[in-house]
Amino acid sequence: MKNITLIALFVAFAFGSGAPPASAQAAGADSVISHDLMPVPESIEFRRNVRLPVSRDFRIAFANFADERLRAAAQRTIGRLQRKTVLGLTSNSSGPVEGAFLVIETERAGAMPPRLGEDESYLLDVTSERAVLKAPTSTGILRGLETFLQLVRRDSEGFYLPGVEIRDKPRFPWRGLLIDVARHFQPMHVLKRNIDAMAAAKMNVLHWHLTEDQGFRPESKTFPKLHGLGSDGDFYTHEEMREIVDYAAQRGIRVVPEFDMPGHATSWLVGYPELGSAPGPYEIERDPGIFDPTLNPIKEGTYEFLDKFLTEMAGIFPDEYMHIGGDENEGKQWDANEEIQAFMKERGIKDNHELQTYFNKRVLEILKKNNKVMMGWDEIFQPDLPKDVVIHSWRGQEALAEAARQGYFGVLSNGYYIDLIHPASEHYLVDPIPADSTLTADEKKRVLGGEATMWSEWVSPETIDSRIWPRTAAIAERLWSPQNVRDVDDMYRRLEVMSRRLENLGLTHKKNQAMMLRRLVGSDHIGDLDILVDLVEPVKGYRRYQVRPQTMLDPLTGFIDATTPEASVRRRFAAYVSDLLAGRKVPNPENALKVEFYMWESVAEGAPLVIEGRPSLLEIRELPSALESLTEIGRQAVAYYQGEAGPPSGWKEDTLRKIDELAEPKGGVEFVFIDDLKRLVEAAAAEKEPQ
Amino acid sequence: MKNITLIALFVAFAFGSGAPPASAQAAGADSVISHDLMPVPESIEFRRNVRLPVSRDFRIAFANFADERLRAAAQRTIGRLQRKTVLGLTSNSSGPVEGAFLVIETERAGAMPPRLGEDESYLLDVTSERAVLKAPTSTGILRGLETFLQLVRRDSEGFYLPGVEIRDKPRFPWRGLLIDVARHFQPMHVLKRNIDAMAAAKMNVLHWHLTEDQGFRPESKTFPKLHGLGSDGDFYTHEEMREIVDYAAQRGIRVVPEFDMPGHATSWLVGYPELGSAPGPYEIERDPGIFDPTLNPIKEGTYEFLDKFLTEMAGIFPDEYMHIGGDENEGKQWDANEEIQAFMKERGIKDNHELQTYFNKRVLEILKKNNKVMMGWDEIFQPDLPKDVVIHSWRGQEALAEAARQGYFGVLSNGYYIDLIHPASEHYLVDPIPADSTLTADEKKRVLGGEATMWSEWVSPETIDSRIWPRTAAIAERLWSPQNVRDVDDMYRRLEVMSRRLENLGLTHKKNQAMMLRRLVGSDHIGDLDILVDLVEPVKGYRRYQVRPQTMLDPLTGFIDATTPEASVRRRFAAYVSDLLAGRKVPNPENALKVEFYMWESVAEGAPLVIEGRPSLLEIRELPSALESLTEIGRQAVAYYQGEAGPPSGWKEDTLRKIDELAEPKGGVEFVFIDDLKRLVEAAAAEKEPQ
Repeated sequence: MKNITLIALFVAFAFGSGAPPASAQAAGADSVISHDLMPVPESIEFRRNVRLPVSRDFRIAFANFADERLRAAAQRTIGRLQRKTVLGLTSNSSGPVEGAFLVIETERAGAMPPRLGEDESYLLDVTSERAVLKAPTSTGILRGLETFLQLVRRDSEGFYLPGVEIRDKPRFPWRGLLIDVARHFQPMHVLKRNIDAMAAAKMNVLHWHLTEDQGFRPESKTFPKLHGLGSDGDFYTHEEMREIVDYAAQRGIRVVPEFDMPGHATSWLVGYPELGSAPGPYEIERDPGIFDPTLNPIKEGTYEFLDKFLTEMAGIFPDEYMHIGGDENEGKQWDANEEIQAFMKERGIKDNHELQTYFNKRVLEILKKNNKVMMGWDEIFQPDLPKDVVIHSWRGQEALAEAARQGYFGVLSNGYYIDLIHPASEHYLVDPIPADSTLTADEKKRVLGGEATMWSEWVSPETIDSRIWPRTAAIAERLWSPQNVRDVDDMYRRLEVMSRRLENLGLTHKKNQAMMLRRLVGSDHIGDLDILVDLVEPVKGYRRYQVRPQTMLDPLTGFIDATTPEASVRRRFAAYVSDLLAGRKVPNPENALKVEFYMWESVAEGAPLVIEGRPSLLEIRELPSALESLTEIGRQAVAYYQGEAGPPSGWKEDTLRKIDELAEPKGGVEFVFIDDLKRLVEAAAAEKEPQ
Repeated sequence: MKNITLIALFVAFAFGSGAPPASAQAAGADSVISHDLMPVPESIEFRRNVRLPVSRDFRIAFANFADERLRAAAQRTIGRLQRKTVLGLTSNSSGPVEGAFLVIETERAGAMPPRLGEDESYLLDVTSERAVLKAPTSTGILRGLETFLQLVRRDSEGFYLPGVEIRDKPRFPWRGLLIDVARHFQPMHVLKRNIDAMAAAKMNVLHWHLTEDQGFRPESKTFPKLHGLGSDGDFYTHEEMREIVDYAAQRGIRVVPEFDMPGHATSWLVGYPELGSAPGPYEIERDPGIFDPTLNPIKEGTYEFLDKFLTEMAGIFPDEYMHIGGDENEGKQWDANEEIQAFMKERGIKDNHELQTYFNKRVLEILKKNNKVMMGWDEIFQPDLPKDVVIHSWRGQEALAEAARQGYFGVLSNGYYIDLIHPASEHYLVDPIPADSTLTADEKKRVLGGEATMWSEWVSPETIDSRIWPRTAAIAERLWSPQNVRDVDDMYRRLEVMSRRLENLGLTHKKNQAMMLRRLVGSDHIGDLDILVDLVEPVKGYRRYQVRPQTMLDPLTGFIDATTPEASVRRRFAAYVSDLLAGRKVPNPENALKVEFYMWESVAEGAPLVIEGRPSLLEIRELPSALESLTEIGRQAVAYYQGEAGPPSGWKEDTLRKIDELAEPKGGVEFVFIDDLKRLVEAAAAEKEPQ
């Protein structure tokens, strides 16, 4: 009970007596021209005091061209507007331009299926009479409709759009999200809702990572043991894959399938061990990591197999590009295989990298025959590839720039590995072409964009949305908006709004958290867990498996899975500390910290009531006591910082050591305020003479 | 802030200082033998002080028979156990009986596809060594696995099953849920998660209501304009229908499709107006209600069409039964059609009921040819039908009994109309064969069971779960458990647990509420709406359309849609009032009412802060002030009830009148405590002499 009083105190502080810090910093000087569009458009000019009210006779009309895709998009727009406004609209069919609320003007259809580099620009003009959305093709209209929906505001008079003129087009033509459906399978409806979210963030490439050591997900009619023995029964039929391709195309999104080879191939070999570089038998891999099973590059049978298989897949995936992976082949099976060694010697292939190049060239022939352009990870890069190949870089901007200099196209993923649980701000500031790039204008054009990568070792259908969104919307903005849009605070302000938009589209990143906590507690009354869960995050990078090992078959329903990659206390506490150390008085950081610590203390006291006696929560049993000690340290540091005298000698070192001990992950989660607490301790010790 | 303090007070009162009233009343005398199984098994005997701990080497073994369906069910059981316990299990494959945690013993497969009347019995025996689940066929095993999962408990030592011997079988062989996917389409994953929920509640018939005036949902390859023009593009392909049939069969659930005819047929006629009894043209109906469009019963073309269409459907739906609707044909098009009138005169058909009988007989021939047994609503009943026909009764037990006396099989839905938003207790006490039934034993056997009916005028994929669950689990218990299991308080105690189990299966009835409130407020901070939403329910019966008219195209995202059919304050307040009036002192009803009123008052004060300025919430703008006045009345009534003197003369009448005024629905919702508040007022006025 006490805790809830304190939360009340906190809420009153944060939302009653002033806006939260991020918002306060980010709010524009003129409230009329502030907006929460995400991604930020290329140019936006508001018409002051102009508003276009949304009324029950809302109607979309086509001034000239319209096709089925466009009509369906308009229909979805109406549905989303209705769900938001709770307005029963009087007309659902389009009609004459005269009297329409939104007029769509375009000359022709965008590419169908969508193509790399097609024109995505649009112009959106809102006056008090109507909104007009113009674009060279229907693809630009799709992008503009998302902006249109984001513009809808409300006040006591009702919903309306502000008068505005927006001219917009993307900075990069390749704005992707990789979803790994191999390590953990994701059902159709999970993919569809994520495609909806991509469209809302103006992303245009779903990179469908379909095969891995841990699972082979596409149905193959030519080689039915691929999915039959390699997927535990969790695979996509031809029809389902076509359905995803069409669903994405309807939203102006390309689908680039990835069939990872020659490594990451265990699941292929379960049914067809004869393709392997070692005799087998093989079983589906259940652990995370990098494994040895590798396709055999010296057998003609391998290429005959790949020819038939990739040709089958080319019939399903119409996109110009096909991704062959190519990453992380450590070549152990090759080293151990005498025939392969003999083949290499015979042909003068001097190392495994060259052998993989040989393999790639053979695969390239197959792709070419199918009119596909090859895409692969950094490892495929070598000088005599055809120039249309796309290098997908997990290594970074420099590797990408080097490829561009040599005339190759590239897509950046280094810096966009959302599975590593870093904050949105880090990804946001990663630019495929940094401001100080020395590339020429032509070379820059070869840097096509980027892709966020949702590797799925630790995500289930229940948690994947929270690992992708809302952070990926920050990456989407980096890839769409002008290079100089880099204000992190403003990004976070808009990201919070975007997150709700995504929830309204059906994404589960917000609502599943409370559900998961209810399951862990076994009650609707989850006590202080809802606050505790927001003080911690999963460990970062590749540490999860080290501190909390699991196989792919184990449940993803622990406390760690209910936490989010970016707890809200992280930025809040950092702002309080920064305010305090900068001597700012408004908002009052001293009070803010007092309330924050009071809340931590109360959670530290209350959480054990929920945790004890619940076996599924015992792994975080030590979190509350650690929190209590950290709270005490925080209070002490503030007191020293503000007091006349500094801390006793040795306090800083002792305290920092103690913090490190208390900060050890428990159940795979760690407190998010550790760095800022240390900053406070350092400052407390630095400001004064020792006692 | 004040409000939250009060809620804290309330929570402390309700959960700290004593169990909530319902639970207190329902708890068994001996805590060892209390259980939360739902439906209650036929017989259950606990072994005292025996526990079977769930550990990481949990494994399911098959003592003799096992087939693919059974293995898949065992795999799902392991997955659900893992998700609940957060345990990474060491073995996922089955192995020898020796050392297995759960041993499954069955002789043979249940019917595939499932059949009406097949043996569903099972025996579950849990000792400290192992659990043994026995059944004559795998269908009983499927039922027993659900019981097995429901038995898992936890304490500070870990998860375990109590020692127990359960013998169980269903009372009725037909335990159905009708889902109307015609008025509002429901995507595949919504159906699948509801099938999962049905299986958890041991239901065994999905009655798939596929066609209506408002939509034609099955794809027809023979007559593609049926779904092509009758569905707005929202239909199920042949493959998808087969997928649902298989998904259900895997869980021991039959799928009975309904193609409603000759009425409720507008959507058929959009593409094929020549089948209608009036010339047309026809458009998909957008309003709720009963409409005139009716198939033409005198044209041979109608039967040729139905022959082809139903034969096509018979190829998809393997169940023995096919439902032809037959309800609510008011015959207006027949009265107005001269050819039909002439046909009736010529053949001596004296009224529309007889004409429909003629129609039914013709359809019956088509069904017979396809080896299907006909099922239809009450209206199809007439004496010379073949005896295997099933009468589906919306009229009630008496109609059902009458059919049984005449030798017909019947299924009850009257009393199970969950779309009418009545509390679970009402449905729970409706028995297909009431205790005072005068039917003979043979006649009773013809009463096959019942079906909950989810008519979908007012449900979207977002809200349908909350309209079906958890209430339908109470109906499922009525149809499965022994007749004398009728303790309403105990049912509610177990229903709360069941509701969380369903959430853990993926149902969205709980988690979507907060999401919908966030959307309405446009913020993560929904203020007092989360409490207000639990003081009200949607209006009952068919009133919703009257007080808040909408078409099928309008959004279901209003405050009314975020409310649940059964707000928790309903039973709580009723218990407080009953305790007070009965003079009970423990738990203290006077304090309870004080805290309750305090909470109402605080919500009445706080809610306007969220509602004002938000156009989508303006329809409930008057709720808070009405709540404030009703709170005042409640306090006054308690004061009079407890004071020396009663209220002044006329107070009762004035107050009851005032309550009625304040109780008027707003935005389609109404307060749930009105009847009990009136009871309090009556008591306050009755107890004393007037002042």
